[in-house]
This record gives sequence, C-alpha cells and structure tokens, in this order.
Amino acid sequence: MRKKVKAITIEKHCDGKVTVLSFARPEVRNALSWRMVTEFKAALNAIDKDNQCRAVVITGAGESFCAGLDLVDQGNRQSLSEAVGELGDGPRAGMRGQEYMAEMILLMRAIQQPIIAAVNGHAYGGGLGIALGCDIRMAAKSAKFCTQFIRLGVSGCDIGVSYTLPKLIGAARAHDMMMTARVIDVELAEQWGLVTYVVEDEQLEQQAIELAVSLCEFSPYGLISTKQGMWSNLDASSLAAAMQLENRNQILNGLGGDVEEAAAAFFEKRKANFDR
Amino acid sequence: MRKKVKAITIEKHCDGKVTVLSFARPEVRNALSWRMVTEFKAALNAIDKDNQCRAVVITGAGESFCAGLDLVDQGNRQSLSEAVGELGDGPRAGMRGQEYMAEMILLMRAIQQPIIAAVNGHAYGGGLGIALGCDIRMAAKSAKFCTQFIRLGVSGCDIGVSYTLPKLIGAARAHDMMMTARVIDVELAEQWGLVTYVVEDEQLEQQAIELAVSLCEFSPYGLISTKQGMWSNLDASSLAAAMQLENRNQILNGLGGDVEEAAAAFFEKRKANFDR
Amino acid sequence: MRKKVKAITIEKHCDGKVTVLSFARPEVRNALSWRMVTEFKAALNAIDKDNQCRAVVITGAGESFCAGLDLVDQGNRQSLSEAVGELGDGPRAGMRGQEYMAEMILLMRAIQQPIIAAVNGHAYGGGLGIALGCDIRMAAKSAKFCTQFIRLGVSGCDIGVSYTLPKLIGAARAHDMMMTARVIDVELAEQWGLVTYVVEDEQLEQQAIELAVSLCEFSPYGLISTKQGMWSNLDASSLAAAMQLENRNQILNGLGGDVEEAAAAFFEKRKANFDR
Repeated sequence: MRKKVKAITIEKHCDGKVTVLSFARPEVRNALSWRMVTEFKAALNAIDKDNQCRAVVITGAGESFCAGLDLVDQGNRQSLSEAVGELGDGPRAGMRGQEYMAEMILLMRAIQQPIIAAVNGHAYGGGLGIALGCDIRMAAKSAKFCTQFIRLGVSGCDIGVSYTLPKLIGAARAHDMMMTARVIDVELAEQWGLVTYVVEDEQLEQQAIELAVSLCEFSPYGLISTKQGMWSNLDASSLAAAMQLENRNQILNGLGGDVEEAAAAFFEKRKANFDR
Repeated sequence: MRKKVKAITIEKHCDGKVTVLSFARPEVRNALSWRMVTEFKAALNAIDKDNQCRAVVITGAGESFCAGLDLVDQGNRQSLSEAVGELGDGPRAGMRGQEYMAEMILLMRAIQQPIIAAVNGHAYGGGLGIALGCDIRMAAKSAKFCTQFIRLGVSGCDIGVSYTLPKLIGAARAHDMMMTARVIDVELAEQWGLVTYVVEDEQLEQQAIELAVSLCEFSPYGLISTKQGMWSNLDASSLAAAMQLENRNQILNGLGGDVEEAAAAFFEKRKANFDR
Repeated sequence: MRKKVKAITIEKHCDGKVTVLSFARPEVRNALSWRMVTEFKAALNAIDKDNQCRAVVITGAGESFCAGLDLVDQGNRQSLSEAVGELGDGPRAGMRGQEYMAEMILLMRAIQQPIIAAVNGHAYGGGLGIALGCDIRMAAKSAKFCTQFIRLGVSGCDIGVSYTLPKLIGAARAHDMMMTARVIDVELAEQWGLVTYVVEDEQLEQQAIELAVSLCEFSPYGLISTKQGMWSNLDASSLAAAMQLENRNQILNGLGGDVEEAAAAFFEKRKANFDR
C-alpha cells in the first residue's frame, strides 16, 4: 500500500501560472527514497511540458525541506531496480543509481520555468543539492543547510554541489561546507548568500508563491531566456562568448512585440501586459 | 542643435595621470542614447592611446550614474543608423545595434588603464552593465543597483551582466538580481560585494579621484598588467594555466628597473618613485 | 651556520593523523627566503607520502603567518641557485625562480591531505598566496590580509592569487585587493569570506588542530576525494561534466565498506569508526 502514497504533491496557483511542488514525506523529513526521486523527475518533466506554467516553487511538507538520502531505502535493491531497472552487480549498477539521483539537478536546470526554493528546516545532503539547483532561494527562519555527504563515508562532492555551491557563494565558504559538513543556520546562510530572502516560517509558502507570481508579470520568453542564459553563461569561456548568447537572446525577445509593449507601458506609466 | 551637446565630458587630473569621464545627460538620468554610446566608445579609445593617463574614473553628472537605455532614442532608426550605419531590416540589423551597445564593456576591459566606477544614484540596466565592467566600484550613499532588463520585455542577461555579475559577487545573488530585477540599495550592495567603497554623495568624485591617484603611485606596467592579468585569468582553465600568465607578467615587470626601485624604497623607508 | 637553522618546523598530533607545519622565521615575520620555499616544498612532499597523516595545519611562528617575499634574500643569486640550480642570465633564469615560488601552491593543491591555514598576523603577498592555497582558513583576531605584490613594482597577479582569490571570494573584492593592495583586517576578512573561522590569538593553533582532528573522523578516502573533487570541479566545464567526476568518486568511496559503516553508525546512533 505504501507505494500508492505519493511522495510528491503538486498544486497550481494563479490560473496555472505557478506550480508548487511539495516533498510529501514529512514523517522522514522528506528524505529522498528512490521512488521520491522518480516522482520528482516525472513531475519536473510534466511541468516542463506545461506551457501555462511560468514559475515553480519547491518546498517541503512538515518541518523540513529535505533531509537528504533515505538511508533505509537507499540500499533496498528492489526500490533501486524499480527506479533504474535490474542491472546486476558491477560498476554499471552503482553508477546508474548514482547518476539517477544526480540527474534531478540537471533536469531542474533544463525545464523552461524558473524554480524558487522555499526552504524550511533541513536542507541537507541531496536536499541541499536540490535547493542549490533552484534559481532563487527563499528561507524560513527554521532553515538550516548542510552538505552532509562526507558524514556518510563518501566524498563531500555530490549531487552537483561541487559545481553549484562554489559558483553560487564562492569557493572559500563552499569548500568549508563541503569538507566539514558544518551546519549553516539561516542568519549565516543569508550573510553568505546561500539565500537571498528570509521570512517567518508561517509565511514561507505564501511569500514564495508571491515571488513566483511577480515573475509571471515579466514576458514569458524574457523569463525563460533569463534562466537559460544565466546558467549557460556560468560556463561561458569569456565575456565575448557570453555576449554572443546574450545578444541573440535579446533579438529573439524582440520578435514578438514584447519590447514594444514594455516601452508603451513605460511611457503610459502603466503595468506592461504580456498576456496578449 | 541637440547633437552638438556632448553626452560625455572628459576632465584631466593629477598632471594628466587621471581621466574623469562623466555621463553628461543628467536631464534623462544619463540614459544611454545611441549617440552617447558612440561618444563613450570614442572616449575610451582615446584614453587607451593616452600613455600619460594611468587610471580612469567614470561617474554620472547630476543625480544618477546611468539609468539604462534611453527608451525614446532606442527605437529611433536615424539615431541607430548614425551609430552603426544603414543596415535595412533582418537579423543583421538588430544584432548590430545590440552588439554595438554590448561592445562598450569589451572596450572598457580592453583599455590599458584601470577604471573606477563612482556610482551615484541609479546604476540600472546598461548603467549597471557599465559599473560592472569597471575594475573597482565606489558608491555614494544614494547609489542603487538594478538589472532592469527583464522589465523591458527581454532577458535579464544583457550588456555582459550574465558574465560579470556572477563572477563579481557569486551566482546566487547575481541570479536573483537578473531574474527579479530587484533594486539593491547601497547598504546591501556593500554587503553583497557589488561595491567595495561607500562614501557620502558630496565626496564621491573626490574620493574616487584620490583612489585613482593612489593607483598612479604603483609602477605603470605593474598596474596595466594587473588589470590585464586579473580579467584574463577569470577565464583561465586551471590554476597552472593562470600561473603561466602570472609568471611571465612578473618577469616582464622586472625588466625596467621597477623591482629594484621598489626594493630600494622599501629598505630606505621611502615611497618608491616609478616616474623616472 | 644560518643555513642549518630550519625555516620550517613539523609537529605531529593525534597519533600522527594531524601534521602541523610552522613557518619558523619569526624574526623576519616568516618572510619567504629561497631556502624556506625549498624546505616548504620538501615538507609537503613528505606529508603527501605519509599515509598516516590525514589533515595538515599551516601556521606561522611568532606574530605573523607569512609577510611575503624576503626582499633581502630574493635577489641573492647564491640563494636562488641553491634552490633552482645555476641558470646564468636570460629569460629562463628569471622564469625558473618565479615558477619555483609559484609551484608551492600547485603542490599544496596536489597533496592528498586537506590543509587548514591558521592565520596569525600578516598574510601578505606570497603569504596570502599560501593562505589561499589552503582548503580552509581560520584566522586569529590579529590576522590581516594584503596582496602586496603591486607595491613591489610588479603585477598584483602572483603566486596563483589571480586564480584563487576571485574564485574563493568573488572577483569584485578580489580585484580591489589585487589592484589596490589594501589591507583587510580580520573583521572584513570574515565578512568577505576570506576566512570562515575567527578565534582568539592564543587559541588559534589549538582550534585549528581541533578542526583538523574533526576531519580525521571522516572516512580517509571520503576526505581525500573531497579535496580532489572540490578543486578539480572548480575548473569543470559544465554541471554535467562536474557530475561525471562526482559520481565516480562516490562509487569509489563505496568500495571499502565505509558507506555501510556510516549507515550502521547512523542507525545505531553512534559515531562511525572508519579506522578499521
């Protein structure tokens, strides 16, 4: 029966423009079971195909965002094979499970909508990896952040964190977090740039939704091409190369009348309306 | 007649060692017209050829540094064709205008002198792009920073900002600024590292000039090779590759007697004099 | 006789798991002579071969961490030739000395153990370069940081700093430090992320050793592969490329029973013991 309980819940807001994806295993602090990873990836794929949806909020039911791997389920061979298929032993099997988990972050990056992390309580290990895979991070006062991985007998570099964390907040603090697995409370998280909004716990989901709604006031392709451009250009080989993408993005954005509407709204001192 | 009024003013200080370049359209918050872009690029090219000039300050006349694109002039086809030539329609025309604007930042990077941004009031959109293209940023209490682009129906990645901003202050805060176009006041700008000096408004230009003068006390090629090395090595593929450039820079710096003068000054407890 | 006094001292702690390497020329603020560089590199090579050692602390005897180059010894041709061999004149000779110094940082990066900088007093010039080459930085209240190089008639890009500093704390603050050689006190250093721990001077060495001991509680290969992965992935060309290394690291970590021990310890609510 357990399998029938969804590990992820989806809610629509603002006429379908905003999707709220909640981790729904509060009894285990939303720890990542193989099934939850599968549901999360399926949900992201569905959101990407939903052209009405313009922004996403990810949060955790109960008192945690996501406390990392579910250690009970992690070594359960049946759970794993339901996720990735039966692979027997050998290097291919272990790698496939590892990759299956890490691909969550690649998929978050790939969907067309920006994602706001609404972090309550623990964002540990894989949960931290997911928070860092979001485009913007808002935290409740209860939020706490920890790489955690190295405590589990493995490397502190996991689930994309060795790429995302130093780029997001600088390598000095990132390396300390990865190597010591120290816990960062919300005050330090804001000081270090891990989060750029801090709110009361009881207002977290509402504030995150309001931020998502505010993104929907921008032109749809402006928003999409911002997400794509900002991540793509983190890997640009030079300023000139980054501009090659920026410049073409802007021309594409000018093709559908959005620039004219924005300019008209500016001169008429009204809000632009891109929902034409 | 309008065209005859210069959109940029240039002043020399400290026996020509320091050039102050001011945006001179305070009536429109120094918004970027096509003509202003042309004048700015011409001024930078002239400064680069001026071997007496060792440091540059860029600031804005009136109450703003630069509030971004001049939306009135932006769509004026005659203004554009005076800047980039007549191009007809099609993808080439739009791209050429877009590139013409973005090239400001490449040129700021390319000139031999370091540039100090002295930011008063708005540094929005293209104005933010220019501030980020400077080597050091000083702000007045009135300074406020905003990517702005996404409000205009286009991507938040523009004028090099998707390259410069995450490298300068980390991608977490940069992505928030690019995606939400939130306004960052001077206190937050200092906390986030957008600026590394904050002064009173009435002291801004003088303090920026004094900082520029202090750079002129270093050896001329030491200063030039610092600017070139620090930007070039942002794109270095590894620590070892970065050192290949660093090491050769230092040998070049040792060829003209500057190292001996610096050492002599150190032991004689006097200021080094590289103006021999 | 001078040569017989060691410029570096080595102490073992915690049954040989922690090595404390101290710069031992307090009479010159631990300035880098050619001989000291040679001893430092020899010590790092020896530590790398010591499989009992799992973590390293680097600190400075007396009132400074390391004040940079020893300007007296720097131009001493005999000192240089004892370090790099006799090379005559020409570009090869100068480059070899320059490279010999810079290689310290490559070697710090290459050894298998993480290195904690315990910074007291001056970390200037090459001393800053060494602090930035460490994996984690703890500072005493007396610590102060300065790139210094540009004051010596050369470029502010030296000893790897043009690579390490912008990656560690962001290019905005790094470029200011490199171009102006301003002195950063410990309060600003913590605010900027240059250091992630600040303690009283008299507790510095002990606190750094305790942090090193805490790293020894992690699995040995987990710690090694964290150091290797976090630096290697600073140069990763994309998130997906970074994950290729992360994923394989984790599988390697799973081969020796450490993951099972960590999971067992978690469920038994005890500390994991990887010293089997």
